[in-house]
Amino acid sequence: MKLIRFGNPGHEKPGVLIDGKQLDVSAHFDDYNEAFFAEDGLNRLADVIRELGAELPEIPAGIRLGAPIARPSKIVCIGLNYIDHAKETNATPPAEPVIFMKSTTALIGPNDNVTIPRGSEKTDWEVELAIVIGKKASYVEEAEALDYVAGYVLHNDISERAYQLERGGTWDKGKGCDTFAPIGPWLVTKDEISDVHNLRLWLTVNGQKMQDGNTSNLIFKIPHLIAYTSQFMTLLPGDIISTGTPAGVGLGMNPQVYLKPGDLMELGIDGLGTSRQECFAFNR
Amino acid sequence: MKLIRFGNPGHEKPGVLIDGKQLDVSAHFDDYNEAFFAEDGLNRLADVIRELGAELPEIPAGIRLGAPIARPSKIVCIGLNYIDHAKETNATPPAEPVIFMKSTTALIGPNDNVTIPRGSEKTDWEVELAIVIGKKASYVEEAEALDYVAGYVLHNDISERAYQLERGGTWDKGKGCDTFAPIGPWLVTKDEISDVHNLRLWLTVNGQKMQDGNTSNLIFKIPHLIAYTSQFMTLLPGDIISTGTPAGVGLGMNPQVYLKPGDLMELGIDGLGTSRQECFAFNR
Repeated sequence: MKLIRFGNPGHEKPGVLIDGKQLDVSAHFDDYNEAFFAEDGLNRLADVIRELGAELPEIPAGIRLGAPIARPSKIVCIGLNYIDHAKETNATPPAEPVIFMKSTTALIGPNDNVTIPRGSEKTDWEVELAIVIGKKASYVEEAEALDYVAGYVLHNDISERAYQLERGGTWDKGKGCDTFAPIGPWLVTKDEISDVHNLRLWLTVNGQKMQDGNTSNLIFKIPHLIAYTSQFMTLLPGDIISTGTPAGVGLGMNPQVYLKPGDLMELGIDGLGTSRQECFAFNR
Repeated sequence: MKLIRFGNPGHEKPGVLIDGKQLDVSAHFDDYNEAFFAEDGLNRLADVIRELGAELPEIPAGIRLGAPIARPSKIVCIGLNYIDHAKETNATPPAEPVIFMKSTTALIGPNDNVTIPRGSEKTDWEVELAIVIGKKASYVEEAEALDYVAGYVLHNDISERAYQLERGGTWDKGKGCDTFAPIGPWLVTKDEISDVHNLRLWLTVNGQKMQDGNTSNLIFKIPHLIAYTSQFMTLLPGDIISTGTPAGVGLGMNPQVYLKPGDLMELGIDGLGTSRQECFAFNR
């Protein structure tokens, strides 16, 4: 299944994409939130689709898409998880996964505008495959880890490099600014992805290809990331683990290149759809 | 006012402490959550107390206290914010606040048991004063920062030092284990604290004094911490900023001392009450 959420920010309703049609399931479900995943929502959604299918009301064309999940309890991110990206940032490939966290207030829809923070000069892009957790996970074994996955989403892990690396403290400082987590368009359930470790992922800025990688190059694979993270914190239904970005970020270029107002990012992952965000200057 | 939450984990109800009596306000409020603070809950609570006061039903003796706020969108922590603590951990006092994040699944009540994670050998204590945010805060000016405060709570920022410092990645890895954020007993509204920068805070393990500091020694003061953090992420009503710990943690001792099953931590801050947590081995 491909889950979507549609409507104005903060008032999104749940829907599904079937055969290219966006259909409204808000008569059957409140939202794709922690309770939805915890209470077997994906199976109940499959039942609704089986029973009603094309009879579900179509969503009017042109309506905004939100992130395909409601605000989760946390967004955990994995750093330096592609060898080529570790190299371009002059970092040693890690011996075990690097974990940091992104404020959930950064979450936006897949095609919403990105705000360059006030005074920022180093706002950067990072196309990533992100995991959506389907059930509560604590001290999970790697062999069972995929049982805890609801599905996968496209994520642009936008990062302010000066805040992240030059301002003291942890990376979290440069990862959680408002609009820094465009997610979607779809939550694709895991049954629709035949090999999650062989998906092309790419990102362009103003039409120029910047990133072009493949999840086959992940240093730490998805079952390991889930098992590993669950040793340090309990993952709740709807939580996100973003798996890291391949080479081609602005930080890794010579000279470095960062986002400016008016820049357009477009990105995608095989099977998970595409998104696009235009950059705007902070203005308030 | 002193806000409390009581009942079994995950089913806490809101109450207040008045003249030493614990009174039930669950007929008037669902919970002390984001919506409560956002919708002027503190003023509405003051109205209920003014109208009903001692007529509110008393909470049965011996009932468990939960954290005095519901699970927030985030727990932001400030590192190395007391000179003596920075010195004992061989860290340079920071030029600007160090920010890290704690998984909100770590939140427990003030007197709940603490679980030492599986295989952990370096679980440590940290008494801290934490700020509870009262309204949405983004790019707040320092002069207005206290307008965004609902009140203050006692927090034990429990930390696994090997996970935090020796396992690669950011501090977040050692800060968010289950039970690592005992908070409470009370949320004390800011009007009850005459000088938040002159409060004694202390912690004992098995009756032995380990930490004994004063918030007068905070390197970065509370208005600065709120203004500063709000430049990097939007703070939501009910969010927590924990302000750092004074000297006396196990990491700073020679030889280092860490928590063992059976150890009892007791801690307190002037005006914010006391809490106590017994340590248990991971067992599942």
